[in-house]
Amino acid sequence: MMYPKIPLAQTVIQLCKAKGIKHIVLSPGSRNAPLTIGFSNNNFFKCYSIVDERCAAFFALGIAQKLQEPTAVVCTSGSALLNYYPAVAEAFYSHIPLVVISADRPKHLIGIGDGQTINQPHVFENHIHYSANLKQDLNENETNNETEDLPIFKNIEHKIETLLGLKQSIQTYNETEINKAINVSIEKKGPVHINVPFNEPLYDRVESLTVNPEVVAPKIKNDTVSADVLNTCVEDWNNAKRKMILVGVNNPNEIEQQWLNVLANDASVLVFTETTSNIHNTAFFPSIDQIIAPLNADDFNELQPDILLTFGGLIVSKKIKAFLRTYKPKQHWHIGNTRANNTFFCLNKIIETTPNTFFNAFLPRTHVVESNYKTYWQNIKTHRLLKHKEYLKSIPFSDFTAFNIILQAIPNHSVLQLSNSSTIRYAQLFTLNNTLEVYCNRGTSGIDGSTATAIGFASVTSKQTTLITGDLSFFYDSNALWNNYIPTNFRIIVINNQGGGIFRILPGHKNTENFDTYFETTHHLNAKHLCAMYGFNYEKAHDDASLKSALKTFFNDDSTPKLLEIFTPKNTNDEILLHYFKFIK
Amino acid sequence: MMYPKIPLAQTVIQLCKAKGIKHIVLSPGSRNAPLTIGFSNNNFFKCYSIVDERCAAFFALGIAQKLQEPTAVVCTSGSALLNYYPAVAEAFYSHIPLVVISADRPKHLIGIGDGQTINQPHVFENHIHYSANLKQDLNENETNNETEDLPIFKNIEHKIETLLGLKQSIQTYNETEINKAINVSIEKKGPVHINVPFNEPLYDRVESLTVNPEVVAPKIKNDTVSADVLNTCVEDWNNAKRKMILVGVNNPNEIEQQWLNVLANDASVLVFTETTSNIHNTAFFPSIDQIIAPLNADDFNELQPDILLTFGGLIVSKKIKAFLRTYKPKQHWHIGNTRANNTFFCLNKIIETTPNTFFNAFLPRTHVVESNYKTYWQNIKTHRLLKHKEYLKSIPFSDFTAFNIILQAIPNHSVLQLSNSSTIRYAQLFTLNNTLEVYCNRGTSGIDGSTATAIGFASVTSKQTTLITGDLSFFYDSNALWNNYIPTNFRIIVINNQGGGIFRILPGHKNTENFDTYFETTHHLNAKHLCAMYGFNYEKAHDDASLKSALKTFFNDDSTPKLLEIFTPKNTNDEILLHYFKFIK
Repeated sequence: MMYPKIPLAQTVIQLCKAKGIKHIVLSPGSRNAPLTIGFSNNNFFKCYSIVDERCAAFFALGIAQKLQEPTAVVCTSGSALLNYYPAVAEAFYSHIPLVVISADRPKHLIGIGDGQTINQPHVFENHIHYSANLKQDLNENETNNETEDLPIFKNIEHKIETLLGLKQSIQTYNETEINKAINVSIEKKGPVHINVPFNEPLYDRVESLTVNPEVVAPKIKNDTVSADVLNTCVEDWNNAKRKMILVGVNNPNEIEQQWLNVLANDASVLVFTETTSNIHNTAFFPSIDQIIAPLNADDFNELQPDILLTFGGLIVSKKIKAFLRTYKPKQHWHIGNTRANNTFFCLNKIIETTPNTFFNAFLPRTHVVESNYKTYWQNIKTHRLLKHKEYLKSIPFSDFTAFNIILQAIPNHSVLQLSNSSTIRYAQLFTLNNTLEVYCNRGTSGIDGSTATAIGFASVTSKQTTLITGDLSFFYDSNALWNNYIPTNFRIIVINNQGGGIFRILPGHKNTENFDTYFETTHHLNAKHLCAMYGFNYEKAHDDASLKSALKTFFNDDSTPKLLEIFTPKNTNDEILLHYFKFIK
Repeated sequence: MMYPKIPLAQTVIQLCKAKGIKHIVLSPGSRNAPLTIGFSNNNFFKCYSIVDERCAAFFALGIAQKLQEPTAVVCTSGSALLNYYPAVAEAFYSHIPLVVISADRPKHLIGIGDGQTINQPHVFENHIHYSANLKQDLNENETNNETEDLPIFKNIEHKIETLLGLKQSIQTYNETEINKAINVSIEKKGPVHINVPFNEPLYDRVESLTVNPEVVAPKIKNDTVSADVLNTCVEDWNNAKRKMILVGVNNPNEIEQQWLNVLANDASVLVFTETTSNIHNTAFFPSIDQIIAPLNADDFNELQPDILLTFGGLIVSKKIKAFLRTYKPKQHWHIGNTRANNTFFCLNKIIETTPNTFFNAFLPRTHVVESNYKTYWQNIKTHRLLKHKEYLKSIPFSDFTAFNIILQAIPNHSVLQLSNSSTIRYAQLFTLNNTLEVYCNRGTSGIDGSTATAIGFASVTSKQTTLITGDLSFFYDSNALWNNYIPTNFRIIVINNQGGGIFRILPGHKNTENFDTYFETTHHLNAKHLCAMYGFNYEKAHDDASLKSALKTFFNDDSTPKLLEIFTPKNTNDEILLHYFKFIK
């Protein structure tokens, strides 16, 4: 085996290994050479090399999103690190364990005008669970810098003793900090930053380890619900005739089917599921906006729940947020081990456990409550679904019809990655194939990074992965395609409506030059050239027929990944969507 | 005229105008709609629309680099802002007045799970001169949120009075903060951040202003040198037989020619100029590494100065840094109004004034000192230049010969933008055409953002601008080409050596698969597809003859911008460069 000579690099790498961080996304650089040498020469790790750090971090995020295990990104010093920030913030709000490891110059070379040198410690302060700022190894030739502040030595023995003590205390400090950072990432499920100063020489190697760092295990939370809390919940639940469950971003298979069935069979319970919730039952309400958009005040009174129970991450639907903020439930309980958001300004109970553990303890003690709550809304749902089908027959080719066709074509048991803005909002209007696993970066809901995230995910799953994305989001993250780890069964579908179509739906002043330039940011780009550049098979469609035809073979095995670009009419998409919400009433 | 209805948006815009911020780089978004509406409907401003915020910020940096005036970037809330960070850090270390204006949600909508909402205040804390965190306007329908903490009102008059007072105090606070932020950007020449919370509705407009913010002028420093300091400097200078002047990044025309001539005529003064220094004289030493690389300990003793005088920004040459850190001058004076770096660990005098002011006061009081210092090194320079020419004749086509040919072909009186890593280091080895203005982002020395910076610069200069860049740096910033403001006379030259050629020059272990993947990051990409996508004329060269031929017409007027890609042999470039330093001895 080959190791970097610098003990601190060995320490970082050995602790990553001890904690089971297997996937390491490296970006090229010289200051991080000790880490690159160490990770890439150790068979325990699966290493990736990605040049653009913005994409590298989202790629790692995609890996961690799939595996739900800490995943590392490693970069050199300087602005490289700052390019990680969008993904770090996404990881922070989406509770994804991303371990950022940055090489740095030693302290005495910072702030004196050396190249690629910035102020790295605590640089992600606003969006990080822990920042470990390691100290440089004390080597013989570097003691001058580190010992400047020490008292004068009495004699040579005293000097040796002091330096050895200092060296040992630095090693202990670093081990403690690395353990803590990785543990926090596991415990809190989120990003942490480990900043690692190295002095030259950076490229030296040794054949055996010179460190044996202590491994401190993360604290695993005792996942139970207190009897007191449970008793109150049970009592309130059994007495309430209107209970609403709202599920945001939620990983597949987190809730046992039996509990979903119990909820589905209770007439006093409405379960609203977002597309990203990954839970399914014919009795649930998966297209929230389809239900809510056409409602008036009377309807809202009819819908207002006594108890709102939420789990999962952020909610996409603005309409349900607006509704619940105005028609506040008497109680809002949130179940989950990560940050609980007071999204509707009435959160009164945070139950820190997994939803499954909670249901396991809770549901057996509840009973079905007689109520017309669900029946009433099931009828409306049925009506809406009929109108939805009717509407589809009445409209020309558009974003709306394209999504309808695409979503039916995604292969069973595959992974669907959705980009933000219009894409996720359109997807929410359709009943999805319940064998799909669905993901979307809703932590910061940015248009950046969706492609790199999807590719990261695709690189570690055996399932086929399809990304549906808008044109702006796709071009924004075009460097994501600069990647040697894209499986040949990976698919991208770009809905190209020549700009930010979402702005036409918002209350701006459309159809002025000013609107086109600064809001919609109209363009005439297409994805063909990027496909040629990065080895994607390129197909395109511009109407229902060509789209259906393309989809017939699009998901078939091939020797390269594929991209299908669908050109939709930007000037009618918005009217078709806005009219939809009136039509389905 | 059309204004956004929200008074806070008007206030931000009016103060930008009052302070002469003319160039506004907008990225699309909804939360920033009040600012977009206001800036883009006001003829005072020249607005730009750029989707990828990472490029938008570097584009603005390029504008500010040229104009040396505060330039604004405006984005929506969420991760958009984080994509500015690489350019913000570059502006921080390069002393460029970049004014970041981010829209935000109002305080009561942050941290509760709304989309595109992060923790924006102070997000650039490590690399920003000032963060103004504005408060939301107090409008009738929003008073509930802002007045929650107020004491109970005695009566309705009391309530109105209190609310009016609060409204006024918020307006005053915001005006003060905006004035302060922009003033700091001007005074300190660097980035500042103004975070602006807006509540919905965001798109409303009015026909006349409802605010008249107070304008506070920035403090202009009294630019003089104290008599005491001057006296000591003059005495030491006149007594020293070896004085070295080292000039880093320095804007064109900052130093009067008469002072350069005085320095050139003094036999006790060596002036080392980096490529980015933009000062020229045949008596100066423009290719630092060419002089220093082959020296031994005896030579270094011969070169060690008594006084080192520096001005300008960061130094590229690692060799002169290593030399001066080991062979420290007795004194190091730094002249300049921005951060003085103790690059050589012997800085003993910081003179806070412009170099021109200093020379103006200082040089008339100095006299020429007899010394063989300059003659000795002029002889070596002459020898090196002869060997340099000889070497060029002896080597095959490579990065080295390509730079030689390109640098001779750049048109007179044009602008040369250089990317980081190999590009700037190669450029330093050649004597540049002294009519060129040369720029390089040496603040963080990142490979990110060079293209967008060059395009921003090109968009505000009447001179032709050429960017020379490496392949990794070019592909990293490929989104920079997604830009509607590229002048047709803009030129890009990509030196494509199929990876990070600089790593072959560093002391790694070359020619292993591991090296290729994680250090050099070898690829087979070319720029042809990006040119087709973004409307650049594409040309390529692969040897001396095809390069010379392409350059004959490359700079001529055309209807589109152009890119010339030069493919050089990655396996010989490093040997040719390393051998150069031995050959010229």
